[in-house]
Amino acid sequence: MNFSIQTEVLLNNLLISQKALSTKTPAPYLQGIKLEVNENELVLLTSNSDISIKLSIKDESLNIESTGEILIPGRVFVDFIKKLDKGIVEFSVVDNNVLKIHSHNTDLSLNLLNVDDYPEINFYLNDLPIKLESKIMKSVIRQTTFAASSVENRPILTGVNIRVENDKLIAIATDSFRLSQKKIDIQKNFEDMNVVIPSKSLDELSKVLEMDLDEILIHLNSKSIVFEYGNILFQSRLLEGNFPETSRLIPVEFPIILKFKLDDLAIAVERASLLSMKDNYNSIVKLSLKPNDEVEITSNSPEIGKVVEEIDPIEKVSTTPIKIAFSSKYFLDALKTFNSSEVYVKFTGEIRPFIIEGTDDQGLIQLILPVRTE
Amino acid sequence: MNFSIQTEVLLNNLLISQKALSTKTPAPYLQGIKLEVNENELVLLTSNSDISIKLSIKDESLNIESTGEILIPGRVFVDFIKKLDKGIVEFSVVDNNVLKIHSHNTDLSLNLLNVDDYPEINFYLNDLPIKLESKIMKSVIRQTTFAASSVENRPILTGVNIRVENDKLIAIATDSFRLSQKKIDIQKNFEDMNVVIPSKSLDELSKVLEMDLDEILIHLNSKSIVFEYGNILFQSRLLEGNFPETSRLIPVEFPIILKFKLDDLAIAVERASLLSMKDNYNSIVKLSLKPNDEVEITSNSPEIGKVVEEIDPIEKVSTTPIKIAFSSKYFLDALKTFNSSEVYVKFTGEIRPFIIEGTDDQGLIQLILPVRTE
Repeated sequence: MNFSIQTEVLLNNLLISQKALSTKTPAPYLQGIKLEVNENELVLLTSNSDISIKLSIKDESLNIESTGEILIPGRVFVDFIKKLDKGIVEFSVVDNNVLKIHSHNTDLSLNLLNVDDYPEINFYLNDLPIKLESKIMKSVIRQTTFAASSVENRPILTGVNIRVENDKLIAIATDSFRLSQKKIDIQKNFEDMNVVIPSKSLDELSKVLEMDLDEILIHLNSKSIVFEYGNILFQSRLLEGNFPETSRLIPVEFPIILKFKLDDLAIAVERASLLSMKDNYNSIVKLSLKPNDEVEITSNSPEIGKVVEEIDPIEKVSTTPIKIAFSSKYFLDALKTFNSSEVYVKFTGEIRPFIIEGTDDQGLIQLILPVRTE
Repeated sequence: MNFSIQTEVLLNNLLISQKALSTKTPAPYLQGIKLEVNENELVLLTSNSDISIKLSIKDESLNIESTGEILIPGRVFVDFIKKLDKGIVEFSVVDNNVLKIHSHNTDLSLNLLNVDDYPEINFYLNDLPIKLESKIMKSVIRQTTFAASSVENRPILTGVNIRVENDKLIAIATDSFRLSQKKIDIQKNFEDMNVVIPSKSLDELSKVLEMDLDEILIHLNSKSIVFEYGNILFQSRLLEGNFPETSRLIPVEFPIILKFKLDDLAIAVERASLLSMKDNYNSIVKLSLKPNDEVEITSNSPEIGKVVEEIDPIEKVSTTPIKIAFSSKYFLDALKTFNSSEVYVKFTGEIRPFIIEGTDDQGLIQLILPVRTE
């Protein structure tokens, strides 16, 4: 194998590749990047227990003298290419087990891993993939993965449920204390699908979607999901098991609806939450709609002190006062998902889940379970 | 006590104050900020085992209704003031043990600590302090503290030795494997001084020197050092014990002198060091001046591979070839201290300390001990 390429081109692709590099693995070959040089392309392949990434490079700076395939120790290779000066970098394999790298005044000899150890990895592509704007895919990820469970006692909840039904794609995540749901329109006539993707895989995908490309293609079947983005194939494993049926959890009638400026609401909850920051993960604040129509957000710590925030709703529909307590972290996490400058907070009762919706965020619902106090 | 002030003014001062807040301390009162309201100023006082900071605020927005002194839980107070909207914030003490804070629609009641628990802290000021440009002080810190020891087995080496002699201020740090020395001119006729300041105190001081002020005053006596910077007094404890006499360690004659572009040298050493990054702290690279006058920087790991970097010195004075091995980390740390674009590397022998000097960094010497290999 013998080829040369522009350093920056190789590096930009390696930076994507390395997102599927295993750092700790009992299988050392998964710490490697498989490099295939074909007639007219360079292919980079990486894989860990969750995701596999395949990149096909057909750059005009790519000059192939002879083909072949090798397995390179990933970490040191990427670090080294990062440090090279701009320009052309040349690669050649000697004695079948050493890669010689030359660029300007730098010569590196790198011991190779055994490419025969590398597992066969198939990427399953459909003839008619689902087509999405890549920025919409990115925001679906941002709006859902945070709500997935980070503990493993119910593994299925560490994933994001993706459903295709009625010409819509629905993404749902819940850790059983809160839930995020986003619906978007897709092309017509797709078969119904219901899969669960590890939320970490989606977070990694989100980092990959940084190139200036409009479109992402989703190849979904019951065994795997492959995202196709430019020259990148990004495959994730699916979680096994049934995602809970969540549609009945979301209330549909709301006797109390308050509309706020998002920024005002967020800062008031942030300030109120500071008093209980010791117990970081579960700092509880209270929202009260008083009989005189004032809204207060309060927090009380016998040790430290007490905060009272008055906040004026822009609009209000209400038949009754309410006092409801909730995790400030869950509330703030939820608020961050909205692109709207104004949000509705909709209540059904003091111990019933409440939801948040944005004026400009169609299809997005954030649901939070209140906590009982006193 | 009852006063009000512009939130931003208070916050900017609190951000400095909090650098001396104890986070973990057996004495809870050291987690507090002592606030004194006098006739015409607000004084903030914080102290931990290493440093004490006193700030005097005489802002035009400061409006004092009544004087007094209180001790406020530091962390939660600073976090809260950070989150306040711009504008005026009002403070009043009720029942001697609660601070009421009001700003816009926000009301906070904060339980106070007992101000009588707070120790008396004196700041010792001289009539004629040493005067320095604050940016020079900042660079002295940047150029020395990194070379101090981070392990406690010889506590005196965790400090920076500051000497005043012959109208010069000399700062020296060494962990016994490397040494950094910076000499600067000061005003005439100061008494000789020789003290050791904890390097952490200086790093904290460096963060304080961010205001747009030209001058810093140093009040030095045998017991303490106080830096005066605008409305800030920053006092550090001194380390007890004798700092080693280092002047004889620095060679004065160099049979081999190589001059390099700093950036070229740094990137070559960085690349060479990548192969041994597993053993992060002590990755060893070799510099060879060959009989044919070429300079090579190399690194060799039987497991991973080998790097050879050729680098052309801009100038060369040499009677003999040399091959010398050293820690890439120490070398790169040293290079980072120079503002010069070109540096001299000066050798006396393969197992003798070598030094680095910059073409535009008067008074700065970086010394590194080589390691034996083979």
